[in-house]
Amino acid sequence: MSVTLADIEAAARRIAGVAVRTPVLESPALNERTGARVLIKAETLQRVGAFKFRGAYNRLSQLTPDERTRGVVAFSSGNHAQGVALAARLLDMPAIIVIPSDAPAVKVAATRGYGAEIRFYDRAGEDREAIAADLAQQRGAIIVPAFDDPHIIAGQGTVGLEIADQAAALGTSIDLVVGPVGGGGLMSGVGLATRARHPAARIVGIEPSGFDDTRRSLAAGERMGAPPAARSLCDALESPMPGRLTFPILQRTLSDVLTVTDAEVAEAMRYAFEVLKLVVEPGGSAPLAALLAGKLEVEGRVAAIILSGGNVDPDLFRRVLARET
Amino acid sequence: MSVTLADIEAAARRIAGVAVRTPVLESPALNERTGARVLIKAETLQRVGAFKFRGAYNRLSQLTPDERTRGVVAFSSGNHAQGVALAARLLDMPAIIVIPSDAPAVKVAATRGYGAEIRFYDRAGEDREAIAADLAQQRGAIIVPAFDDPHIIAGQGTVGLEIADQAAALGTSIDLVVGPVGGGGLMSGVGLATRARHPAARIVGIEPSGFDDTRRSLAAGERMGAPPAARSLCDALESPMPGRLTFPILQRTLSDVLTVTDAEVAEAMRYAFEVLKLVVEPGGSAPLAALLAGKLEVEGRVAAIILSGGNVDPDLFRRVLARET
Repeated sequence: MSVTLADIEAAARRIAGVAVRTPVLESPALNERTGARVLIKAETLQRVGAFKFRGAYNRLSQLTPDERTRGVVAFSSGNHAQGVALAARLLDMPAIIVIPSDAPAVKVAATRGYGAEIRFYDRAGEDREAIAADLAQQRGAIIVPAFDDPHIIAGQGTVGLEIADQAAALGTSIDLVVGPVGGGGLMSGVGLATRARHPAARIVGIEPSGFDDTRRSLAAGERMGAPPAARSLCDALESPMPGRLTFPILQRTLSDVLTVTDAEVAEAMRYAFEVLKLVVEPGGSAPLAALLAGKLEVEGRVAAIILSGGNVDPDLFRRVLARET
Repeated sequence: MSVTLADIEAAARRIAGVAVRTPVLESPALNERTGARVLIKAETLQRVGAFKFRGAYNRLSQLTPDERTRGVVAFSSGNHAQGVALAARLLDMPAIIVIPSDAPAVKVAATRGYGAEIRFYDRAGEDREAIAADLAQQRGAIIVPAFDDPHIIAGQGTVGLEIADQAAALGTSIDLVVGPVGGGGLMSGVGLATRARHPAARIVGIEPSGFDDTRRSLAAGERMGAPPAARSLCDALESPMPGRLTFPILQRTLSDVLTVTDAEVAEAMRYAFEVLKLVVEPGGSAPLAALLAGKLEVEGRVAAIILSGGNVDPDLFRRVLARET
């Protein structure tokens, strides 16, 4: 089961008027610094503070009345949890979220705030997939994967459609699209949409150092697991392996995958604070980090940079501002 | 010398393509909380991080070639300094900025970064107007006031025109416009534009507690100085008295002036961080503070809230997040 442009266009119709059509922002200061025209796709301004709402709403809105009664289960380090929780509330169905006990408190509180039931698990000692499967079986609920699902991918792909439409409305066209890669849901959707609209565009995924499973998988031509790694500052991008569905799409659509260090990510968060006046979480800053570190060849180009989320614990944000990370 | 809608429209043409046409953002979470449709005019995303660039560019772009050679002098607690400094750089003229020695470091650094010469003064013991007048005489430079100037007022008024246009593009119309009041440059311009476009709209100015000189002046029917006060968290709004030009315009256009406390402002800054994912400086948060504190009657209305600036020292921002202010 693959995903087509038509699926993404259908997702765009489903989420219209529910998801925020996030703006494309431009910073003259950033344009001057990079020598590029940088279109900042601010998914930080999306409902739940991250693009994840798009995929979740696209998935949940297609459940049958019977399925809606039984509800949904999701496991997530944070933003997917919030996306599913809010989509479930808007569609009036129950949701249980299986969430690591060390997830950012702001994400846990928000998920609970949307009315979802929370089931914590120990990241080191428990298997979240098994917990979710048990819960789903007990309650007859539907498991909503974070990325490896065609409806999720199609929903996230609406980010790419919007970028293409917004660039056209500005009288320009995209040479380059850059977004973060965890499991690959966002960039497989964005890749499909961008390939369809701008066949010649470069499409670049960004992974945190130590979690470059997609980069290595693409190099090997098959899905490779990440080695045991220290934690990354980018909690949202700590995926162990690209998905079964996302990987072949990423193979077809991505031009390149680059990595960024925690220090580069922290620097990007400070730049977003000081210059762009935007709150961006670590994983959401990865594309900006690559741009500011000079890893993207953008001079003279029109580059869309996806700031994918803004859910960062105040305490971590304070430490980043104080250069204590 | 007064200011007309035609002056504001002319200013809009002068700044077009130079200033950022800042977006109007909507947060479903904020709409839900307030029961209103809140259009967030994000002047935090303006060049120099605040609306002040509009007025400065409108003023400086009208100088004669001879005046441009001699340059400009401005005195400012921060954002006006940056606005003048950047406008001078873009128009290739020298600028000297007279700035209090206790101004936020981020504002000083940015002003210097735009190539302006800095002259510090002691807020307690020196007269900034006298210093600026001396410098102007020595160099033959033009003094650019922070608010009490028809071209500055007209430039800031473009915020109001844009709000009206952007609301129309959204298929709606503004019932209420809310913005911060220091010397009144922003809200006199916005007041004029809004009265012209939406004659029935409520136009509300927000002042920090202890700096409610405009509120008291409007009540008295004449310009009243502020009493000696402790410092406010809102460094950008510590004006002692409404301007000679701004006051009669504010008298004609403002429906009301309300005050907010430092605690309410800090709460609004945290809300902007956590929910809106926007970095807003204290003075720029005052309208949001009034909204969140329930001081505005917005239920069922369309309310435009001007977040006027985002230049906040990282250290102060950290203290606000930690509830240490």
